[in-house]
Amino acid sequence: MTTTPSGGPPFYDVVTTQRACRTFLPDPIPDDVIERILTAATHAPSAENSQPWRFVVVRDEAKRQAIADLATKVWTGGARQHSAPKLAENILHDVDQSMTGGAMAAAPVIVIVCGDPANTFPSAMESSIWPCVQNLLLAAGAEGLGASLTTMATLIPDKLRALLELPDDITPYAAVPLGRPARALGRPRRRPLTEVVHHDQWDHGDKSP
Amino acid sequence: MTTTPSGGPPFYDVVTTQRACRTFLPDPIPDDVIERILTAATHAPSAENSQPWRFVVVRDEAKRQAIADLATKVWTGGARQHSAPKLAENILHDVDQSMTGGAMAAAPVIVIVCGDPANTFPSAMESSIWPCVQNLLLAAGAEGLGASLTTMATLIPDKLRALLELPDDITPYAAVPLGRPARALGRPRRRPLTEVVHHDQWDHGDKSP
Repeated sequence: MTTTPSGGPPFYDVVTTQRACRTFLPDPIPDDVIERILTAATHAPSAENSQPWRFVVVRDEAKRQAIADLATKVWTGGARQHSAPKLAENILHDVDQSMTGGAMAAAPVIVIVCGDPANTFPSAMESSIWPCVQNLLLAAGAEGLGASLTTMATLIPDKLRALLELPDDITPYAAVPLGRPARALGRPRRRPLTEVVHHDQWDHGDKSP
Repeated sequence: MTTTPSGGPPFYDVVTTQRACRTFLPDPIPDDVIERILTAATHAPSAENSQPWRFVVVRDEAKRQAIADLATKVWTGGARQHSAPKLAENILHDVDQSMTGGAMAAAPVIVIVCGDPANTFPSAMESSIWPCVQNLLLAAGAEGLGASLTTMATLIPDKLRALLELPDDITPYAAVPLGRPARALGRPRRRPLTEVVHHDQWDHGDKSP
């Protein structure tokens, strides 16, 4: 019987310290922690409350390694070349370690978040799945765990389907490694609101007549 | 100068009480509250930290009414017929009120969340925008405000672009009304974890040989 979690650290502290964690300690995660995190994930909104999310909680070491290998394949097969010029050097180094250095497989748990199209319509799938993934990531932070939103392994969905015996109609969207962070993460860097917020209509700035 | 918000109510209390609010009191929302909510939104993760979200904070009454009218047009033009059989009667009644009864325009603020494709790649847009929208919705709850994730008005993006003078390459994804809830919302209803969680591989249950 799942109980709905309550309490936890202050909301804004969790939200404003969220960072992608890519290096993990091997300490196992207790079942009740995983349960609270997944319960938070299922409290995301979804179109028509269809709750199309499905989770595969992967603890098995060989399967975690196989998932990490899929991510490596996508990363070294083209994604790195695409992303490298746009990433800060330290981030690129971390992603390299994560994708090819075994860091992702070192996380004691990888959660594969999937979408089941049975009760929803295709155009509403992503607006339901990603809020669920975000709740999962935030809840991991609330529990003092590191996590990151990765999609590499899902970009060759048929291999992931075969590995996890997913039905043909189930689409994997994210592979979220979870574990104790191997090192402290700094604060996230963000553009100031003034660069992204407009009032009542788009401010075209210098481009206005 | 934006300060990063801290504190707030306990994380799990915010997450597990999130509900779609569709009826609002007209009380204005202070600027600092909007600023905290939007700062939370911008702390979502995004592919390559591209931060592709852009916001139009609509307080202008005529514009809010025009946005609500776009939603009405989509709802009565086909969406209601599609959704009605799948919605609980009380929810359908609320959505009807929201979409055609002026309830959406009654919210003192509607935030239009848009995506700017300049610094990201198309396949990563939704995995960045929806976590941002989810942070926005959660932060609204942390502030004691009601909010809901609506997309109806964005389904005729050219009319919304014209109304808000959005550049052609900016895509609106969500229209989030914000305001004091006109009535208390009950707890969300969710399937138990046992129906959506699998361990190490998909459990095919009765379908297994």
